[in-house]
Amino acid sequence: MRINDTTPKQDGFHMPSELAEHKCTYLLWPERPDNWRNGAKPAQKAFRQVVEAIAKHEPVVLGVNQSQYSHVLGMNMKNVQVVEISNNDSWVRDTGATFVVNNNGDMRAIDWAFNGYGGLVNGIYFPWDLDDAIAAKMTAIENVDRYRLDDFVLEGGSIHSDGEGTILVTEETLLSEGRNPDKTKEEIEQILLEYLGAEKVLWVPKGIYMDEDTNGHVDNIVQFIAPGKVILAWEDNPEDPQHERSQMAYNYLMSETDAKGRHLEIVKLHVPNVVTITKEESEGIDSVEGTFPRNEGDRLPASYINYYNCNGAIILPLFNDPHDQAAVETLQQCFPDRVIETIPLAREILLGGGNIHCITQQVPKA
Amino acid sequence: MRINDTTPKQDGFHMPSELAEHKCTYLLWPERPDNWRNGAKPAQKAFRQVVEAIAKHEPVVLGVNQSQYSHVLGMNMKNVQVVEISNNDSWVRDTGATFVVNNNGDMRAIDWAFNGYGGLVNGIYFPWDLDDAIAAKMTAIENVDRYRLDDFVLEGGSIHSDGEGTILVTEETLLSEGRNPDKTKEEIEQILLEYLGAEKVLWVPKGIYMDEDTNGHVDNIVQFIAPGKVILAWEDNPEDPQHERSQMAYNYLMSETDAKGRHLEIVKLHVPNVVTITKEESEGIDSVEGTFPRNEGDRLPASYINYYNCNGAIILPLFNDPHDQAAVETLQQCFPDRVIETIPLAREILLGGGNIHCITQQVPKA
Repeated sequence: MRINDTTPKQDGFHMPSELAEHKCTYLLWPERPDNWRNGAKPAQKAFRQVVEAIAKHEPVVLGVNQSQYSHVLGMNMKNVQVVEISNNDSWVRDTGATFVVNNNGDMRAIDWAFNGYGGLVNGIYFPWDLDDAIAAKMTAIENVDRYRLDDFVLEGGSIHSDGEGTILVTEETLLSEGRNPDKTKEEIEQILLEYLGAEKVLWVPKGIYMDEDTNGHVDNIVQFIAPGKVILAWEDNPEDPQHERSQMAYNYLMSETDAKGRHLEIVKLHVPNVVTITKEESEGIDSVEGTFPRNEGDRLPASYINYYNCNGAIILPLFNDPHDQAAVETLQQCFPDRVIETIPLAREILLGGGNIHCITQQVPKA
Repeated sequence: MRINDTTPKQDGFHMPSELAEHKCTYLLWPERPDNWRNGAKPAQKAFRQVVEAIAKHEPVVLGVNQSQYSHVLGMNMKNVQVVEISNNDSWVRDTGATFVVNNNGDMRAIDWAFNGYGGLVNGIYFPWDLDDAIAAKMTAIENVDRYRLDDFVLEGGSIHSDGEGTILVTEETLLSEGRNPDKTKEEIEQILLEYLGAEKVLWVPKGIYMDEDTNGHVDNIVQFIAPGKVILAWEDNPEDPQHERSQMAYNYLMSETDAKGRHLEIVKLHVPNVVTITKEESEGIDSVEGTFPRNEGDRLPASYINYYNCNGAIILPLFNDPHDQAAVETLQQCFPDRVIETIPLAREILLGGGNIHCITQQVPKA
């Protein structure tokens, strides 16, 4: 049922941390050949690696267009429910429901408006009608009630919650012209607090350099590793444009306190070396008017921070890069009790414009 | 997960009676204009009446094509989950999963092959690929394991189980040329017993007169009202072709015992007066080559026996007919503890070729 007259905060619900226990994880199967090279076959291989890595630790619900349903069902993957969810693309972090819980063990869902990352201003594909319906469909499968915001555009990758009242966002995304140009920063903050059941929003200025698809989603540059503790994508080289962005985030986060009044502890995690699209990769994509182009030589927003926290594990993108090993070690130090599941094929996900965090969405254990 | 090497019987599972407690009921939303008149709008009204009647008593999962998703979601019906399930038509009794349970409270699903009621021999629409995938999709939503029979065609409306080892079928359907022409009656019986976890199959000769769509499904002529007790569609008038069919069923059932060795008690329920398609009704259908025609004057297989048992209620089709009242009274006598929910719009469902039992599929409470 759709709830029309109240907000999650009014009803005693809040968004838990991704680090809290999950019921399951949703993903969507990649398919569109104008975004995924070679008919999406390399991406499908990478997504399957992610699905199977998560399914070792918690149940996976995999949403698939009818066109790929038989094919994916036939993989007969263990601990994976293959459901039909028509989609324009496979970024369930951004299009899926945001689940909120209360203290009685109940769960509800937030169904934000979705407009393809900027609508007719700077959206990256058209149409986005199927993607805007994904949250409702997930809600139906989970059989919970749903708050729907018809007039507030938000992608799940543009918010993090520590589960204790603090929300992390970037100004670059949330104040971008293609989302909610009719709303002030204060109005946007108020909506976030009301719907996420939170007390304070931390506004990191910018996301990862060249994260143009998403206008700099927070989930590619910084993540909570515990309440009061974040991990930040870092670039040592002052000549690289990422250095200034990371430094701005660092300075901002050091200057702030969270909802509980804590100063934040910041772990730095160096980004991989610059990743650019090869000629072969670019040529594998069906170039289409109206879909974000993937040209030879384009720099991709590669970052280890786009990892996913599932029950007992971290699902970490690797890039066949000298920094890979440090990323594994740093995260293992942050999470001594979690398995670090690495995804060597992550480059294929990055080629589509995001990474592991972008293609996953947790359902909390209520 | 698909189970490949065993059968439900080997694994200790059986199909419970429809009268046992349900977890929920599935329906599919009608849409195709070559089967449902006036763009399926009158049928949608009738289906909604059925959905809301059942939802008073148990949860409903309503599968909808993407094309109607927003519309149906917007109805915001109480106790109804609106999920996406692409379908060729809306007979979930026939296309949906058959759920089986064991004594440990576990549930699994049987996914029979579906070929549009007779494939290229005498199927009633083409293609049927979406319908053949429905059982798998229901299974995924219910998150249970699935037995798939690639080489055995069966519709759920062609079987009844008393939950105590006895299965009711008609020879007319199960031995029809378009289902499993490569299998003998004995082979078919063996498959039913193995998959439904049963001991005995009762073969009623024929279904309702002019039930040509389904070749005489059992669920339009006879139903269990308890183990050892059935209710049979009856026609007093010896001039009407239904009389002989009902008499044959009666004689057969009187001559048999069930799996427990019981003689069957038979309650007769008179069919409504002959229902034929009007000119206006026929003209509302988009006539299409390859889809079963609905012509003016065609006799429809109207029967009260196509009612549905849900938790605490009977969902009963009415036809604005002099026999309606007796049907309500007879069923109320059979089920003094159940509410008789009547569906006055049932004619609209009948116009599409079936009735309430055909458009519902129970998920047992495991």
